[in-house]
Amino acid sequence: MRTQVVIIGSGPSGLLLGQLLTNAGIDNVILERASRDYVLGRVRAGVLEEGMVDLLDRVGAGERMHAEGLPHQGISLAFDGRDHRIDLHALTGKRVMVYGQTEVTRDLMDRREQTGATSLYQATEVAPCDFAGERPYVTYRKDGVSHRIDCDFIAGCDGFHGISRKSLPDGALQTFEKVYPFGWLGILADVPPVSHELVYANHPRGFALCSMRSTTRSRYYIQCALDERIDDWSDDRFYDELRARLPAEHAQAMVTGPSFEKSIAPLRSFVAEPMRFGRLFLVGDAAHIVPPTGAKGLNLAASDVHYLFEGLNEFYRDRTKAGIEAYSDRALKRIWKAERFSWSMTMLLHRFPGTGAFEQKIQHAELDYLIGSTSASAALAENYVGLPY
Amino acid sequence: MRTQVVIIGSGPSGLLLGQLLTNAGIDNVILERASRDYVLGRVRAGVLEEGMVDLLDRVGAGERMHAEGLPHQGISLAFDGRDHRIDLHALTGKRVMVYGQTEVTRDLMDRREQTGATSLYQATEVAPCDFAGERPYVTYRKDGVSHRIDCDFIAGCDGFHGISRKSLPDGALQTFEKVYPFGWLGILADVPPVSHELVYANHPRGFALCSMRSTTRSRYYIQCALDERIDDWSDDRFYDELRARLPAEHAQAMVTGPSFEKSIAPLRSFVAEPMRFGRLFLVGDAAHIVPPTGAKGLNLAASDVHYLFEGLNEFYRDRTKAGIEAYSDRALKRIWKAERFSWSMTMLLHRFPGTGAFEQKIQHAELDYLIGSTSASAALAENYVGLPY
Repeated sequence: MRTQVVIIGSGPSGLLLGQLLTNAGIDNVILERASRDYVLGRVRAGVLEEGMVDLLDRVGAGERMHAEGLPHQGISLAFDGRDHRIDLHALTGKRVMVYGQTEVTRDLMDRREQTGATSLYQATEVAPCDFAGERPYVTYRKDGVSHRIDCDFIAGCDGFHGISRKSLPDGALQTFEKVYPFGWLGILADVPPVSHELVYANHPRGFALCSMRSTTRSRYYIQCALDERIDDWSDDRFYDELRARLPAEHAQAMVTGPSFEKSIAPLRSFVAEPMRFGRLFLVGDAAHIVPPTGAKGLNLAASDVHYLFEGLNEFYRDRTKAGIEAYSDRALKRIWKAERFSWSMTMLLHRFPGTGAFEQKIQHAELDYLIGSTSASAALAENYVGLPY
Repeated sequence: MRTQVVIIGSGPSGLLLGQLLTNAGIDNVILERASRDYVLGRVRAGVLEEGMVDLLDRVGAGERMHAEGLPHQGISLAFDGRDHRIDLHALTGKRVMVYGQTEVTRDLMDRREQTGATSLYQATEVAPCDFAGERPYVTYRKDGVSHRIDCDFIAGCDGFHGISRKSLPDGALQTFEKVYPFGWLGILADVPPVSHELVYANHPRGFALCSMRSTTRSRYYIQCALDERIDDWSDDRFYDELRARLPAEHAQAMVTGPSFEKSIAPLRSFVAEPMRFGRLFLVGDAAHIVPPTGAKGLNLAASDVHYLFEGLNEFYRDRTKAGIEAYSDRALKRIWKAERFSWSMTMLLHRFPGTGAFEQKIQHAELDYLIGSTSASAALAENYVGLPY
């Protein structure tokens, strides 16, 4: 088989890239190790920047998002027992869209099926080959048979644990990493959220986040030690702990109900540079991870897709390699700003084991300054809604 | 002897407080351990916020400052071999005034002499007494004789090493401190500055600051290890190292000449809370220290003086204690914001021994974001020119 671009990974970034390419008349094949249902069952992020919303509209996959998603104009920072609203829309003219990554993935899969482009699920032993040269190809196995697809380019959209980054030769990448000394214990439950907007709480007991997927489905998180065991956290214990970290207005308003998902996620910052090696590109989580505090992971994958699509489109349309050669630098410039923001939000809102009294006061002064300064609020807001591509 | 307010320390904060009190008809005496000439010989800060400029005008000590001081509308952040100007005036509508603390002190001393208020120099063994009650007094020795001044209030304007803070009973204060793992090696020289505005440089070799006292007198600093010895730093070595840390335009323009002051200062953040104990008040460095990176030390002392004067004036004019009882909280609210700013500028601009690759990238991303974002530049600028009292 031959195609122009092989995309490894059928998550939102691979699907979005595929759709942009298909719409531009560039042939592409998506290879996904898991099944369609498995991909759709993964619980992930849920806050979309306008840049991502625009991309979904552009590829014709935005209809259900606009019907069912929740446009948010602000977020709250809760500390000292009070809610302090950051009016994102007043400060930036922009909104964010609350719409689950799972739904984005489903919409993009449906759109891809409409256009008849090829997605191969349960393709195992995927291996990008000869990408340092002009004629790369990808091998894989499906239903017990080995296959090969020849192509012009390979897009690694297969996440942090995927094969794409691991296929690079030793020494090709420089990596940067920070592991945070805590995790997030999160639940999903079909209960109305405590507030119509997201609440980020800094409390002496630890960080808490009241997020949502819809007006009837809440996504709640509490900072926890890395060695906590999920089995020790009944729903009741979780809700009690969450309530203790929220201002009274939210704690009292909280509606509880059985969780149908409960998990502990570690927090990590990670960047691998560069993001292009010959004709193989790393996209999204394959190249970088942010802690979820700034809601940037999915959105950053979308901006990578934007830069990569521009480069590939210029290659096929204008016969210039400039765009693909600039991909890594252009993407990384925005990535490091989002890494900075995600790191700073994480530092601002969590309680760090062993933090000195001075640093704890500085964290409080930062919150106090932030809510009182229009400039500082605007800086937070412009990052939260997403810096321009 | 009896007075209304005894002020311990004849630095700029003690003198400024004294002048505000004198102008309001409140009797005060300043006790200073050192001689007048010694006080005037101390080399200190040189960037005044508009709030401080206004206070000096208000007490009639601003004339020479306006004639000889240099109003600055911006500063430069230098990194990656380039200068990036922060236009303070465009971003905030305010300026800063470059005018040495030594000159401020001289002008305030001259003004005090005009009004005939009492300053006692070389007053040793100063001891604030009975300030927990309603009838405090201060004892001291001068010319071998012991003296006592009865008063209503005692203002401790005697700096970090002064007696005022040390006079408080054990457990009266909570202290917060951070010591930075480097110092500033600074020189004064009668050479024209490399730029008409201050240049703050972040360079792989370390931080550098090109400041000035006038158009013909430069104040240059380089970050150094804490165990550096001044004797190892000839003027030539200093200038070579400074040049290596600056963008080429400044390095090439640098005029060198013999230094007449050279010293190494450690960098420290420190706050003692509360700032009032009965009828004793801590003011300026007696209660808090900032690293000099944000040019906040002297200005923070001035805002303390403002709050304390308001409280004392209300006490004598309106017979209410509300202002003096609120002094500590009002002052500390602004102090913690300045501590935060000074800490953040220090973290942003210095190279920290042992910093990981991720943190180094984050520092660069912070600089990169800062110069590209109007909101972030405005946040820096509003802090640099001084948050409102």
